[in-house]
Amino acid sequence: MKRVYLDHIAATPVHPQVLEAMLPFLREQFANPQSLHSAGQEAMAAMEEAREKVAALVGADGSEIFFTSSGSESNNFAVKGLALAQREKGSHLVLSAVEHQSVLHSAKSLEKLGFAATLVPVDKWGRVDPDEVRRAIKQETVLVSIMLANGEVGTIEPAAEIGKICRGRKVLFHTDAVAAAGNIPVSVKELDVDALSLAAHQFYGPKGAAALYLKKATRIMPLIDGGIQEGGRRAGTENVAAIVGLGKAAELAAAEMTARMSRMAGLRDKLIAELPRRVDHVVLTGHPGERLPHHASFCVEFIEGEGMLLSLDMKGISASSGSACTSKALKASHVLLAMGMDHALAQGSLVFSLVDGTTAGDIDYLLEVFPPIIDRLRKMSPLYTKYLEEKGQ
Amino acid sequence: MKRVYLDHIAATPVHPQVLEAMLPFLREQFANPQSLHSAGQEAMAAMEEAREKVAALVGADGSEIFFTSSGSESNNFAVKGLALAQREKGSHLVLSAVEHQSVLHSAKSLEKLGFAATLVPVDKWGRVDPDEVRRAIKQETVLVSIMLANGEVGTIEPAAEIGKICRGRKVLFHTDAVAAAGNIPVSVKELDVDALSLAAHQFYGPKGAAALYLKKATRIMPLIDGGIQEGGRRAGTENVAAIVGLGKAAELAAAEMTARMSRMAGLRDKLIAELPRRVDHVVLTGHPGERLPHHASFCVEFIEGEGMLLSLDMKGISASSGSACTSKALKASHVLLAMGMDHALAQGSLVFSLVDGTTAGDIDYLLEVFPPIIDRLRKMSPLYTKYLEEKGQ
Repeated sequence: MKRVYLDHIAATPVHPQVLEAMLPFLREQFANPQSLHSAGQEAMAAMEEAREKVAALVGADGSEIFFTSSGSESNNFAVKGLALAQREKGSHLVLSAVEHQSVLHSAKSLEKLGFAATLVPVDKWGRVDPDEVRRAIKQETVLVSIMLANGEVGTIEPAAEIGKICRGRKVLFHTDAVAAAGNIPVSVKELDVDALSLAAHQFYGPKGAAALYLKKATRIMPLIDGGIQEGGRRAGTENVAAIVGLGKAAELAAAEMTARMSRMAGLRDKLIAELPRRVDHVVLTGHPGERLPHHASFCVEFIEGEGMLLSLDMKGISASSGSACTSKALKASHVLLAMGMDHALAQGSLVFSLVDGTTAGDIDYLLEVFPPIIDRLRKMSPLYTKYLEEKGQ
Repeated sequence: MKRVYLDHIAATPVHPQVLEAMLPFLREQFANPQSLHSAGQEAMAAMEEAREKVAALVGADGSEIFFTSSGSESNNFAVKGLALAQREKGSHLVLSAVEHQSVLHSAKSLEKLGFAATLVPVDKWGRVDPDEVRRAIKQETVLVSIMLANGEVGTIEPAAEIGKICRGRKVLFHTDAVAAAGNIPVSVKELDVDALSLAAHQFYGPKGAAALYLKKATRIMPLIDGGIQEGGRRAGTENVAAIVGLGKAAELAAAEMTARMSRMAGLRDKLIAELPRRVDHVVLTGHPGERLPHHASFCVEFIEGEGMLLSLDMKGISASSGSACTSKALKASHVLLAMGMDHALAQGSLVFSLVDGTTAGDIDYLLEVFPPIIDRLRKMSPLYTKYLEEKGQ
């Protein structure tokens, strides 16, 4: 059976050069980078080289990059750590309603410690209005956290404008760039951010390696307390192999980004144009223009995401119905609901996210197998039957 | 040059079978285990198999194992998570003075939130007296955290007795078993613990994979909030490859433990007997009998650990002067100071920790090169010159 992987937002394949770079650190170079002996120092040197490469990807300095184990950890570290470090200054946060669960739930945990959060709404495309952020910032606001791009609907947020507003109001600005970094150009200077989260498994690096960019001289409370690793800001024996893989993935992303983007955007555009043409009652979700180059997301009326995913899987196609961090919960996505979509339609969410290597043939195959799948599922759908009856058919 | 790696406590080599088990998940099986498609479900199945193997290593049920990224994360998760989940019950913790920094500093962070901690002392061997724990427990005590074995001095703590006391007093008991698990038999039932930390890189697994055992129905606050991973208790895309490696390492450890222990203990005993015989003013640190089978630690008078490590490294020997999480800080170890050692002597700390594969020839080589190294370093030591003068030589 043909296999077509269209679930970039859940995890990308590991680039063969990334794995090659990692392997020595899973074999002979297994030492702990904190060890004083030369084996340890070699591991440390490799890790620091990776740090420079990650820094280069986002226009930062190596000293501003802190390695973590996942995008969720980076988001927890940023939101909780920056808020708690400024407790004496204030206890109010501003987030958007479409943030990742790791940002939203970090804020919920902070609420138990006396913080409060304002959720800024989004438009029907999932875009935050920077003026809403401006209005939400209060005297006691210590942190604004608005994502750079949304993994569920692909929309790119006006983060640079928000960065300017935060700088003017002297409020720290964190952006969750997990879906964006390594896939589209990201510059911490242009965004004017104090903190930015990224994760290797979103750009052909391994799982288990992620980073938080933290602007020089920004105070933060560690999430993981203990040893001297990461300048005392994040304890725990470093996952050297994965960090080296993240570094290599960052280097490759920087070098190949333009080519990757144009390859994928062309195929994405075909999918976005063709899918609603071949199947009725399919709507694009997220912004039509301002979206990730690998991202095509839809809502299919009258059926639920799970059935579509399993049917597609039987045809060899891997796709998703939203964030892998929540999809199994099978609740309607908080992102789609925040965009004003009704509950029933939000259940029919479907995300096709391309990887570098996706071919025109893959997209043609999807376009070919998709209509009969939907046809079959709708025949079993009470919602569709009701719709037809109401329409008088 | 001969290479002799004696820094198990910093990191063990990855067992070739562990790497072999990991590789498919860094190549074709890269999917996110939370994805509903079959590629995701295969990753999930591999992860759940690993969970069962880790559970088997410590006599737990698979549902009681939560994966994390490091021993430090497991310790933070346990100490902070169990304390915060019981906030309404009380705000007092009992720890030992020789806990790992990730336990001690977690308690310090909790102090900022209104908790208080009692540090129970240890004897000259680094052993906690269970009666001291009994006395330290108060009405408001919600958690006791005492390690199972100390990585710096090798001493095994009377954790089972402490477990009994805690059970009797209805206080939760966490043990940091990072240095112990996979190296000596560990049973959560015999220890009567509610939570136990372990890490793969201490028993021939990869860095980046660790676990927290959490007894069924024990309430905990997540350290990393967000998605539905790990039963909602630890968010973040799972590091599938490393988790599979941890599982394989656990399986191998369970099967080979007795043989590994007897191989290493024989060589360790030779080192413990011979080193102080060949060099004057060398004392064993930690308990002479109740210690990890791979662990030989000493204090060498009149010289500092760093000089010895670098000199040994020039002879191809990798050793350590204590925990990799603190060694570069070059402060006297809090563990040795808690054991009543004077500050100057504690600076001369040296840990040789054997790995499976260490040979009699390796130990002979160390015993051969060590005396001239110490001789040379002492000739440059003002402390030694002073000692000789005072002795009248």
